[in-house]
Amino acid sequence: MRSKDTWITVDQDEGYEVVCFMADVGQEEDFDAAKEKALKIGASKCYVEDLRREFIEQLCYPAIACNAIYENVYLLGTSLARPVIARAQIAVAQKENCFAVSHGCTGKGNDQVRFELAFYALQPSIKVLAPWRDQVFYDRFKGRNDLLDYASEKGIPVTSTKSKPWSMDENLAHCSYEAGILEDPNTTPPEDMWKLTTDPSKAPNEPEDFTITFKEGLPVKLEHSGGKKTATDSVDLFLTANAIARKHGIGRIDIVENRFIGLKSRGCYETPGLTMLRSAHVDLEGLVMDREVRALRDQFVTFAYAKILYNGLYFSPEREFLEDSITSSQKSVNGSVRCRAYKGMMTVLGRWSDTEKLYDESESSMDEIGDFAPSDTTGFISVQAIRLKKFGKAKEEAGNSLVKG
Amino acid sequence: MRSKDTWITVDQDEGYEVVCFMADVGQEEDFDAAKEKALKIGASKCYVEDLRREFIEQLCYPAIACNAIYENVYLLGTSLARPVIARAQIAVAQKENCFAVSHGCTGKGNDQVRFELAFYALQPSIKVLAPWRDQVFYDRFKGRNDLLDYASEKGIPVTSTKSKPWSMDENLAHCSYEAGILEDPNTTPPEDMWKLTTDPSKAPNEPEDFTITFKEGLPVKLEHSGGKKTATDSVDLFLTANAIARKHGIGRIDIVENRFIGLKSRGCYETPGLTMLRSAHVDLEGLVMDREVRALRDQFVTFAYAKILYNGLYFSPEREFLEDSITSSQKSVNGSVRCRAYKGMMTVLGRWSDTEKLYDESESSMDEIGDFAPSDTTGFISVQAIRLKKFGKAKEEAGNSLVKG
Amino acid sequence: MRSKDTWITVDQDEGYEVVCFMADVGQEEDFDAAKEKALKIGASKCYVEDLRREFIEQLCYPAIACNAIYENVYLLGTSLARPVIARAQIAVAQKENCFAVSHGCTGKGNDQVRFELAFYALQPSIKVLAPWRDQVFYDRFKGRNDLLDYASEKGIPVTSTKSKPWSMDENLAHCSYEAGILEDPNTTPPEDMWKLTTDPSKAPNEPEDFTITFKEGLPVKLEHSGGKKTATDSVDLFLTANAIARKHGIGRIDIVENRFIGLKSRGCYETPGLTMLRSAHVDLEGLVMDREVRALRDQFVTFAYAKILYNGLYFSPEREFLEDSITSSQKSVNGSVRCRAYKGMMTVLGRWSDTEKLYDESESSMDEIGDFAPSDTTGFISVQAIRLKKFGKAKEEAGNSLVKG
Amino acid sequence: MRSKDTWITVDQDEGYEVVCFMADVGQEEDFDAAKEKALKIGASKCYVEDLRREFIEQLCYPAIACNAIYENVYLLGTSLARPVIARAQIAVAQKENCFAVSHGCTGKGNDQVRFELAFYALQPSIKVLAPWRDQVFYDRFKGRNDLLDYASEKGIPVTSTKSKPWSMDENLAHCSYEAGILEDPNTTPPEDMWKLTTDPSKAPNEPEDFTITFKEGLPVKLEHSGGKKTATDSVDLFLTANAIARKHGIGRIDIVENRFIGLKSRGCYETPGLTMLRSAHVDLEGLVMDREVRALRDQFVTFAYAKILYNGLYFSPEREFLEDSITSSQKSVNGSVRCRAYKGMMTVLGRWSDTEKLYDESESSMDEIGDFAPSDTTGFISVQAIRLKKFGKAKEEAGNSLVKG
Repeated sequence: MRSKDTWITVDQDEGYEVVCFMADVGQEEDFDAAKEKALKIGASKCYVEDLRREFIEQLCYPAIACNAIYENVYLLGTSLARPVIARAQIAVAQKENCFAVSHGCTGKGNDQVRFELAFYALQPSIKVLAPWRDQVFYDRFKGRNDLLDYASEKGIPVTSTKSKPWSMDENLAHCSYEAGILEDPNTTPPEDMWKLTTDPSKAPNEPEDFTITFKEGLPVKLEHSGGKKTATDSVDLFLTANAIARKHGIGRIDIVENRFIGLKSRGCYETPGLTMLRSAHVDLEGLVMDREVRALRDQFVTFAYAKILYNGLYFSPEREFLEDSITSSQKSVNGSVRCRAYKGMMTVLGRWSDTEKLYDESESSMDEIGDFAPSDTTGFISVQAIRLKKFGKAKEEAGNSLVKG
Repeated sequence: MRSKDTWITVDQDEGYEVVCFMADVGQEEDFDAAKEKALKIGASKCYVEDLRREFIEQLCYPAIACNAIYENVYLLGTSLARPVIARAQIAVAQKENCFAVSHGCTGKGNDQVRFELAFYALQPSIKVLAPWRDQVFYDRFKGRNDLLDYASEKGIPVTSTKSKPWSMDENLAHCSYEAGILEDPNTTPPEDMWKLTTDPSKAPNEPEDFTITFKEGLPVKLEHSGGKKTATDSVDLFLTANAIARKHGIGRIDIVENRFIGLKSRGCYETPGLTMLRSAHVDLEGLVMDREVRALRDQFVTFAYAKILYNGLYFSPEREFLEDSITSSQKSVNGSVRCRAYKGMMTVLGRWSDTEKLYDESESSMDEIGDFAPSDTTGFISVQAIRLKKFGKAKEEAGNSLVKG
Repeated sequence: MRSKDTWITVDQDEGYEVVCFMADVGQEEDFDAAKEKALKIGASKCYVEDLRREFIEQLCYPAIACNAIYENVYLLGTSLARPVIARAQIAVAQKENCFAVSHGCTGKGNDQVRFELAFYALQPSIKVLAPWRDQVFYDRFKGRNDLLDYASEKGIPVTSTKSKPWSMDENLAHCSYEAGILEDPNTTPPEDMWKLTTDPSKAPNEPEDFTITFKEGLPVKLEHSGGKKTATDSVDLFLTANAIARKHGIGRIDIVENRFIGLKSRGCYETPGLTMLRSAHVDLEGLVMDREVRALRDQFVTFAYAKILYNGLYFSPEREFLEDSITSSQKSVNGSVRCRAYKGMMTVLGRWSDTEKLYDESESSMDEIGDFAPSDTTGFISVQAIRLKKFGKAKEEAGNSLVKG
Repeated sequence: MRSKDTWITVDQDEGYEVVCFMADVGQEEDFDAAKEKALKIGASKCYVEDLRREFIEQLCYPAIACNAIYENVYLLGTSLARPVIARAQIAVAQKENCFAVSHGCTGKGNDQVRFELAFYALQPSIKVLAPWRDQVFYDRFKGRNDLLDYASEKGIPVTSTKSKPWSMDENLAHCSYEAGILEDPNTTPPEDMWKLTTDPSKAPNEPEDFTITFKEGLPVKLEHSGGKKTATDSVDLFLTANAIARKHGIGRIDIVENRFIGLKSRGCYETPGLTMLRSAHVDLEGLVMDREVRALRDQFVTFAYAKILYNGLYFSPEREFLEDSITSSQKSVNGSVRCRAYKGMMTVLGRWSDTEKLYDESESSMDEIGDFAPSDTTGFISVQAIRLKKFGKAKEEAGNSLVKG
């Protein structure tokens, strides 16, 4: 969003009236200053929309409910914010009768795809201006320096400096770092890069305990400070989780990922509260979710949901289909997880559910027979073995005894 | 294995000649004492087989190569050891012309299934004695105390006490804790339960860095101690990874999982070295593995491989099929990962590959155009949008504009 | 169900009061005679429940809606009937305060599993009597002849003869044939075995056309007889589809399948109307269903739904989960398919939808440019090619040029 | 390929030397005449490459081995030919030092994507000319008539007429029909459209029997003519299968499918021999393939392989990965299938395998106990029921008894 002001003037150079749109998805930003600047350099209006609640409730929460993760590691912090931003931007565009919307994403990344696919689904007739893929634009502005020169020439105040040689994207769920010195995948990120979280080595020596309660897979309560404080409102809960996680250095990752367009890319991400909420959710599912529903959900819904979110296909029939499946899968995910934050890690201390009874202590007990007949297992095993005995016998007969290893 | 001595005498009570078999899969155990005891209480012979290398190379390594994980969390430490134990036990049984094999697993757990399915596949004609599912046996020995009484009566030395009110299973890859006080899923395990790993809060304040190198997906080198020491032999490498991870408290989990027989069960596991090796492997795949091969492998092979390992279906056609797929998927997984161990966590500092070139710094760079035309992405997005525009338009026409949220 | 009368007397020999239960799922059977016989040989009551409507609406229709198919070929005709039979049987058992239910399935097949898993889910406390797995029973009745002798001795009229050396199961959706001479998988079934359908070679020489209309994936109208007749009631529609398909010899298959218990089994099935309804549904989905929703549904829901139906897991959390997904996937499956039946085959003549507009004739047209820019495809291809060019280049550099083949 | 001659002259108008390339993938075509014409209108050379054997062995056979099918219906006949054509064309381009290759596909279809992705993988540096996406070209030639005028003006002989208002693509495996009057999905194709197969209503009244033998999943023998003739060479076998299927009207389909670029498209296909070979292969797998390997292969390999073939991703890491999996899955697919062709359908009469013994007649028999204890199944069912009883009990307690339906 930083460089949006620049486009305003560039677009004005082309003779267009420009309405500025900024989304508040929880990033640290001086919106008043940004607004002032936008108007000063020529925007006819400037909208700043607070999208934090819908970002949390409509995007982050479903992602938690299906344990969304991309390529085993990435919690999709950037991807999750794009749909709410795009939707609010189109709403403004419709209100202001704009014929086109714009964004400042480069021509090699995922975000251009995410914004534009969302724009087109939200308003199929919209026109999209993507300056970084416009040859006139990128011939004129070959790099950051050209832009800084232009800003200086036009009297546009900019805060971007060479001191942070990477690009960032921040929202309530996470902050990402990529490009610049991070493009060498073997360069360790400098300690002062990380913005949201304490370095684990500098995190408190005392652990902090708290309890997260879920209802139908969604976080509904976070008790902390020795049980003295409780957050139940979604934004309050999410911010509280963030505060704890940031303090204890939780949620940093550093990966090479596969972008939608087929390039590999190195990214560093910190996702404090979401990391903890997701971990607690995964844990609770162990206690209260049926094995087979979980397996189907894991293999199909979780995988597919993460992929479509990453690829910017939020406004799509398949996302609606998967979200119905998520909702259906979470009916029994009710209960609480006791957690501990300490030096970069969240560990689970225990969990319980007042309503779900799939876990049966006495039945699972190794010390009790219960009404479960151990001899039944003999039959269970014998039947499972029918197929395997045939396999072993065929191997034997072929001289490839499995015993040989 | 503890109570095996007991069966020996019990089986002898039945008039059978008993050959004792013990597997060394890296658990801490006084094998000489165990051997002496077995012979003393009546075994005609006692085999102690060192299976550590085949356990690492044939089981742990393929598990690393496919990032095997059960229900999002469990690295299958117990499951991985069962196939090598079962195979060596059958080999002894065949050598000694035994008509039956036995094991000491209870009638409610996974291990009985794992051992027996392996036995039956390895030697379809074998007979399996499972005392804990034998009504005569479990009517006579209703619980631990009855067994202790029997041991005392027969003069069998036992080390089991009431001081550790849980059951453990240890091998080179992990140690598990379940049953007893752990059966309440909301009981936090006592600090002194964990055997292999340092409590993260007591782990060194100084991080430890090391580098793991993989060839075709398998660990082949671990450089540590500031680059001064290098392990390349598989057992040495694995033990070195264990030593680092144990010192820094890495690899503890606490979960409620779904057993094969349909019961839920609470287990605590520590899996030090394997946790680190798997994490490093996951990271390297980001750099060197094709996106689509990875996605197919993640969704199908990893998921299925973990499930069949967990369920004891190692000696099966499907495991052979999946292992061929793993091998095929790992051709390009060559490179090194720089890692740091600190207070319970392993973080990745960087990674590189000398041979694989899927990651292309200049091409991925946000600062360079390269030979990649940004305008191509416009077409990419437009084509992806065809389907989504239709979706959005149909919504609009039905009065359910996606913009409404 | 034939031999149920036999159990009645056998169970009476044991001193139990027996309530007879028969399900009318559309099989050809003289229920009055059966009832009379049941009462005559000692049942205290005899229930005949007409389950045809719920069989069609609750089982066959969801199967059509997700194109359920087992192992590429089998439409699950027997599996589909089991849940409604089991549910009605338990309802009777509850009404009559029975402590146990029984069934006449053998100990090697799928149906015992299907019935019993359903019974246990429907009423967890129920006791199940399975005479064919009861040693006393099967020691006494070693085969069909022993049973015939027993029936003769007790004066029980039986219709079973040696003239049909196979076992059958019939319901509104299909008739199955297995066992006996069919156990040799290379024996071609005799022409007179097939009961429901005309031999294709004897089917009419004139094709018959009809139109099936679906709403949200379910058949709602069948127009036939040159448009002069229309069936809309579910039972009427299903019976009409059956009549057409039976006349034209549609829906015969002959396969070796994998039973749940791990044995392979040869089965011949004829599934007339369901085969046609499913084919028409598959066809319509091409016209009206989003590609990605369809792909997810095909790979995940269809496969899993068929497997759980086949394995008797209808009354399960996973079936409920999958059925929610089916419903969600079928929102747009509205339209009509024009079909032709002729000599064993149904072919599609055309299809249309008044409401769904995913197919756009002018946009798809090869002869019109429309508002779709062909040059966009260049970008689409270029971006897709990024990854593949790297692949090809790596091959080249390794001396394994893909051009070599 | 028809209009390729046209491009030659068009490209010559641009001043390029043009080398003509034609692939013989079994389509009916007068290659000599085509060659003569190409040279006459200005090509410097004309290559006609016979790719039939590699098309069958390298593409059709793996497709049979994994039962490849797209969207439940389409056997991928066009997709299968593209990789061999593209590879041979690049080989010629390399031999002739061409800097670019071209093709005549339109800008809305799949084939442009298939050819170009193959070209780029095969030779990443190649330039692709796609006249139908070139604005100069399609501004000049707005439709078929403009091209006919151009041909007439330049004296280029063309056979294309308005009498066949659709577009066709033919090869050894199939012939496709789309566009033109077929673009209305409710228009029944005219009877004289189908080129390869007899109309089933005009097919012989006598069925024809034959036997197909597979080795490791690939067809190796076709016995026909009452056992008097045998084809074993791959081309001979495939052509024989085609001859039988064409005579009996086997392999016609008519569908609306989803193209890679996101448009829906109506296509009619006839795929005579491949349809029969695939059906026989599916059947044999029932007899000789392990259930779990088959399930994994069905859900994972078959689905993905069909998708990547359809989307033109043959020369890709994922295709290599999947083909390794296919090979691994087919080790046991050895045996023979007796088949009958009659009036548009192939039915299976029986099957056997001399080497694979997974099917065990006596063990599967309902009439024999064998060494399988029926009581084992009781245990199998009881253990499977543990989870379901909990489910049923929870429902009961919540007042939602499953018995209510």
